[in-house]
Order: sequence, then structure tokens, then C-alpha cells
Amino acid sequence: MADSAGADDEKETGRVEAFSDGVFAIAITLLVLDLKVPRELPEGTPLRDVLMHQWPSYLGFGLSFATIGIMWINHHRLFTLIRRVDHTLLVLNGLLLLGITVVPFPTSLLAEHIRGPDARDVVLIYAVHALNVAVFYSVLWWYATRPKSALLWRDADPVVVQAVTLHYRWGPASYLLSIALAWWNPWATLAVDALLALYFAIPPPHVKRLRRRGGQEA
Amino acid sequence: MADSAGADDEKETGRVEAFSDGVFAIAITLLVLDLKVPRELPEGTPLRDVLMHQWPSYLGFGLSFATIGIMWINHHRLFTLIRRVDHTLLVLNGLLLLGITVVPFPTSLLAEHIRGPDARDVVLIYAVHALNVAVFYSVLWWYATRPKSALLWRDADPVVVQAVTLHYRWGPASYLLSIALAWWNPWATLAVDALLALYFAIPPPHVKRLRRRGGQEA
Amino acid sequence: MADSAGADDEKETGRVEAFSDGVFAIAITLLVLDLKVPRELPEGTPLRDVLMHQWPSYLGFGLSFATIGIMWINHHRLFTLIRRVDHTLLVLNGLLLLGITVVPFPTSLLAEHIRGPDARDVVLIYAVHALNVAVFYSVLWWYATRPKSALLWRDADPVVVQAVTLHYRWGPASYLLSIALAWWNPWATLAVDALLALYFAIPPPHVKRLRRRGGQEA
Amino acid sequence: MADSAGADDEKETGRVEAFSDGVFAIAITLLVLDLKVPRELPEGTPLRDVLMHQWPSYLGFGLSFATIGIMWINHHRLFTLIRRVDHTLLVLNGLLLLGITVVPFPTSLLAEHIRGPDARDVVLIYAVHALNVAVFYSVLWWYATRPKSALLWRDADPVVVQAVTLHYRWGPASYLLSIALAWWNPWATLAVDALLALYFAIPPPHVKRLRRRGGQEA
Repeated sequence: MADSAGADDEKETGRVEAFSDGVFAIAITLLVLDLKVPRELPEGTPLRDVLMHQWPSYLGFGLSFATIGIMWINHHRLFTLIRRVDHTLLVLNGLLLLGITVVPFPTSLLAEHIRGPDARDVVLIYAVHALNVAVFYSVLWWYATRPKSALLWRDADPVVVQAVTLHYRWGPASYLLSIALAWWNPWATLAVDALLALYFAIPPPHVKRLRRRGGQEA
Repeated sequence: MADSAGADDEKETGRVEAFSDGVFAIAITLLVLDLKVPRELPEGTPLRDVLMHQWPSYLGFGLSFATIGIMWINHHRLFTLIRRVDHTLLVLNGLLLLGITVVPFPTSLLAEHIRGPDARDVVLIYAVHALNVAVFYSVLWWYATRPKSALLWRDADPVVVQAVTLHYRWGPASYLLSIALAWWNPWATLAVDALLALYFAIPPPHVKRLRRRGGQEA
Repeated sequence: MADSAGADDEKETGRVEAFSDGVFAIAITLLVLDLKVPRELPEGTPLRDVLMHQWPSYLGFGLSFATIGIMWINHHRLFTLIRRVDHTLLVLNGLLLLGITVVPFPTSLLAEHIRGPDARDVVLIYAVHALNVAVFYSVLWWYATRPKSALLWRDADPVVVQAVTLHYRWGPASYLLSIALAWWNPWATLAVDALLALYFAIPPPHVKRLRRRGGQEA
Repeated sequence: MADSAGADDEKETGRVEAFSDGVFAIAITLLVLDLKVPRELPEGTPLRDVLMHQWPSYLGFGLSFATIGIMWINHHRLFTLIRRVDHTLLVLNGLLLLGITVVPFPTSLLAEHIRGPDARDVVLIYAVHALNVAVFYSVLWWYATRPKSALLWRDADPVVVQAVTLHYRWGPASYLLSIALAWWNPWATLAVDALLALYFAIPPPHVKRLRRRGGQEA
């Protein structure tokens, strides 16, 4: 009985992962729709000038692609350790997916208006969205690791679980700080957010491989 | 023989779930295409005013996201209890997916025209669509639970099956009632539909976890 | 050795099915992008008139949805019987997927121009596309069932295999006939194509369930 | 312990494959959005003339479809031999997926401007993108096959691994050569790139089936 219940749990989690992966994959692929092919060129203007001139959309594409990619790696990392999902986790995961499907909007805003008079506003929108996602990740992970929830694999390596917890600990506060910086200099906000993205792209220390169990390599 | 037929059935159901999950994931992610980035602003208008002014598209986005998310959780709940699919179930599932892919259309109509002279019409379209989806769910579940269909897991917990049946029992009638209210006040229709969405978001009583079998937790 | 090779084959086929399902799910969900929400209405025109007037896009949506749905059920049916894929099958499956991703184009053309002077041309484009897809299905099935290919499950029920073969036998010829009818009356072409779609939606006689093995139900 | 770690690895790789398949499936299906249905025709112009006139978009569609399809087959081929993924492989796979989601952009540019004064520029953009993808594949494969990485199946057939390595060996250099040809004649670049695509579509010699293990067929 315990065994088949365990198999059910794994199937359940598998379906949540598959649905989430679908959302990640679609969100990351839809980004290309923002790269516009110039159809009719003004007389005498070479195509390459028009293409150069739309560099903000390449920047936006690159930023969004990296952001969603890093979020996927983090989602992946958490769900390697999660064995079963309950209703609350489904809702928290739904909030996270909301944050992911929205990504193209603040990044497009940023790329479009970073050079104009609304620079601070678009940086704030971008940074608040990043903060939201960081909070969603932290809440999901906090809920999943509560002893009462009992959602992790029972043989999950405590070193790995602890490393992930520490890795996420300062996320929300750091994003909050980056928002405060916008009143001084919007570019400082972006610099801090880029560093934070990089930080979350790199696996936590002592967690070289995405695996849940400890022990030596075979 | 019985065992390998069972494995076939599970694989079959798995493929139907995967296809349905794909449709849900794409439908929910496509919604972001309705959030438009303002490119050229009228002289002297700050971006934030333009962004504020398009609040109906945020409302539409939020509504559609929640609607599709709740539908996914419900689909998920039913298919936890379904072991095999036959041709009729495939067709019923197809009707359900039709209802899901269409979601952005009535919600966009609603968000765009709720403030204008066509408010009642868009509310009616929205509520009729919600009724259709409720009917599709009820018919699918009625068909799957018919003893003659024999589509459920044989060890499906009868308490859970019964709870789901009761949960869906008043769905179509409630949506019908919400439609009638539109002739009195369209906002009443929306309020009832929002409450119904919430009601279907919450798991039925006595079904705390999305699992098919009874028994104690391990 | 034979067993683990078999497991590899199943995994392989699973990945081809998953990729194909993804394409089907996306193609069927993208259709909603053709349903346009009227933004600004001409003075004094009620929304409902504008919505009624764009009935061809609803027709196109319904047609395409049914077409892709039926194709998915057929794809599903064939792959229930196929155990392994080789390079040629991958290419044939690719041609089939090409036919599926293209579906929105001829159906949109049809819905847009069926009332105008180009009715015959759009019907011809639609019917030629349907013929292509029928030919791709027939070739794929012919290739998969060749004894030399050895791609089917060894315990595939020969009654089912034979029923599928018979079911597809007259497909291409019937679509060819429907094309010839367009010179007499384009609506006759559409009527025949609709009947053929219905014919392919229904499982072949003696194949009530999508399962590969014979034997009694448990 | 070794066994369950192996099962984890397979699940991990499965999730990377599923995510990648999603990206491939969406990228290949989004292409249809570039096939525009002419809505209002200039007075007296038959639809067929308008459709003929937009042949570059059909060319672009066909090219992109074939390109992404061939990339999928290659991705598939590599991951048949890969048993586990580490963080570096995730990043390399991400770069590959970046290359795939971008495909519609250079091919659309090519189809739109190949007849105009910017022909050389769009051919160069197209060929540089093809070179990038070839480099990403080579680096990913080089990394996966390093003895130190230990990412392949331990029973992977060395003949197959070697055949794949040889198959990819001259890819980057050939694409580089094709770029150099653009200064002489852009069509020569396209001809070489088409031949290279064909070359990568065909399985390497001695690798008739996409399987990892050697031994006789059962």
C-alpha cells in the first residue's frame, strides 16, 4: 500500500513538473515573436541599419531568455527534492508560473523605454516583478520543507536541502535592496538584479549535481 | 495478460493527460500576448499613465489565468481517478479542451467592453462559455463514473469519487442561474461566476490530497 | 539484452509521441489567435453585430479544431500499435507534422474567401491539403506495417492492424475524388471532405478500444 | 544505491529531454504564424495571384521547418547516448535551445530580402546563425563525451559514439567556409548550407537505428 501510494505521488509530481515544463518551454519560445523582421525599408536605408537600430529588442530577448532559463533550472532543482504535491503547493506553483508567463512584459517594457524619460519606472516594474518571483520561490520552498508538509523525499540529502534553503535565504531582501537603489540610479538596480540572476544560475555550493540523494558517485 | 493490458491502459491515459496538459500549458502562456507594450507615447504623457489606462487587459489576463489554472486542477483531479480512456472519453475530453483553448476570447471581450454599452452582452458571452465548460466537465465525469464505462481505477476510493460527484452536482444549474441574473445586473453574474470559480478551485471536502486510494497516510 | 533493447525502443517511441503531441497541442491552441476581439466599434454599432459579422473566423476555428483533433486521434491510434521508430519513420512522421502545423492556413483561407469569387480556389487548396495529409498517413502506415520494417509490436492484434489498414485504404482516392468535384461544385467537395473527416474520427469497426492486444476485457 | 541513483539520472535526463522537446515543438509550430491569409484583395486581383506573390514566406516556412526538424533529430540522437546531465550540460543545452528558438528570425529575414539589395547581408546572418548552432552541437557533444564528464551510458556502443563524433567533426569548419563563400556569391553559401543540412539529416554511417547499445537485432 505504502509503495503504490508512493508511485501515485511520483506520478502526480511528474504531471505537475510536465505542466510546468510546458509553461516554461512555451514562455521561452514565444519570445521570438518580439524579434520583428523589417518588411519595407525606407528608400536608400540598408537593412543592416534598421536591424542595428532595433537592438533593444535583442537585448530584451536575451534578458528574458536568460531569466526564464534560470527560473527553469531553479524549478527543476526544487522538484528534484519534492516527492509529492498537495493542493497548497499546486497553488504556489501556479503563482510561480504566473510570474514566468508574465516575464516578456516587464522585459519588453525595459528594453523599449530604458533610454527615455520613463527609465526609472520601467526599471522599477522590472525589479518588482523580479522580487515577486523571488518571493514565490522562497514561499514555495519554505512550504515544501516544513516538516509538517512532508512533501520532500524521505531520503533527500539534508545537506542539499539545507544548501538550497541557504541559497534562497537572502533572495527577497536583495531584490528589495535593488528596488531601493532605483531612486539613486536605475542602472544600479539592473546591475544588482543581473548579479542576482547569475547567483541563482549557479548551483548552491556543495550541490554539484542535481540529485537528491547523498553518497558517493558509483 | 490482464497486467500488461493494465500497463497499456495507463500508457494510454498518460498520453491523453500529456496532450491535455500541453493544451492547458499553451493556452495559459499565450495569454501574455494580450499584454501590449506601449511603443510610441503621445508627447508629454508619462508611460505610467498609458500603462494604468490599459488596466482592462491586466484584469483579462488575471481572470483568464485563474480560470485556466482552476480548470487544470480539476482536470488533474478527475484523471487521478481515471484509469483508461475509450473513444467517447476522448471526444468528451476534446470538447473540454475546446472550451479551454477558447477562454482568452470571452475574457478579452469582457475586459474590453465591460465599461461600455455592450456590458450585458459580453457578460452573457462570458457566462455562457463558463456554463458550457461546467457542462462538459459534468458530462465527462458522469460518463467516466458510469458503472458500464468501467473507466475508473478499480481501487479508486469511493469516498473520493462520491465527493467529486457531489462537488460537480450543482455546477451547471448555478451557472445557469448566474446567466439569468444578467438581465437584472451583469455585475451579479460576474460575482456569482467568481464565487463558483473559487468553489471549484478548492478541493472537495474530505479530499485533501489528490490521490485515488483511501487508507492512512504512510 | 533483448529486453533492455525493447525498453530503449519504447523510450524512443515515447519521445516521438511526446514531440508529436506537443506539435498537435500547440497547433490546436494557436487557433484561438484567429478569433479577434473588436477593440473600437463604429459609432452606434452594437458589439453583437460586429461579432456576428465575423462568423467565418468561428467557422474556421471550429473546422481547424475538429481537423487537428481527428488527426491527433488517428496518430494516437497508429502509435498504439508501433513499438519502435527508425529514421524513415521519423521523416514520415515529420511530413505528417508539417501537414498538421499548416492546417490553420488553408482553413483560414477557406473561411475568409468561401463567399467570394475565389471560392473554388480556396476549396481546392483546402482539399489538396487534406489529400496530402491522407497520403502521409497512408504512407506512414504502409511503411510501419511492412513485414521488413518490423516496427509494430510483435503481439499487436492482427485483427486491429488489418482493420486500420482497411480503414485507411480508400482515404487518398476519396480525397482525390472530392478534389475533382470542385470543378462541378465547390460545396460538394467540402461535403465529401466533412464526411471523410467524420469517417476518420470514428474508430474502425471491431476496434472499440485503443489497445494493441487482443483477448477479452478483464 | 547505485541503481536508484541511476533511476534518478534517467528521470533527470528525461525532464531535460521533455523541456527541449517542448521548445522544439513550439518553435516548429509557431512558424505557421508567418503564413498570412490575405484579407482584403485589391479590386480585380484574384486571390491566387496574391498567394503566389508571397512565395518567400512559403520558402521561409519550409526552410525553418526542415531546419528545426533536423535539429530535433540530432538532439534526439545525442540524448539517446546521454545518461545523465550536469549543470554545464544544462547550460550548453540552453544555448542550443536559444539557437533553435531564434531560427524563425534569420530565415524570415532571408526569405524577405533574398531578392533585394541586402541579399548578401541576410545570407550572412543566416549562415552565421547556422555556424553558431553547429558550434553549440559540437561543444555539447565534446563535453558529453569527455571521459571526465562521465555523462554517457556506460554501455553506449563505442562504434555509435565514434560515428557521431566523426559526423560532427567537420560541421563548424564547413559552415565557416560557407560564410567565406558569401563574398563571392551568396547563393553558393545557401547551396553549401542546404547540403550541410541534408548531411546532418541523414544518420551517420553504421548507425541505422537510434539506439545506444550494440549487439544484434532481436
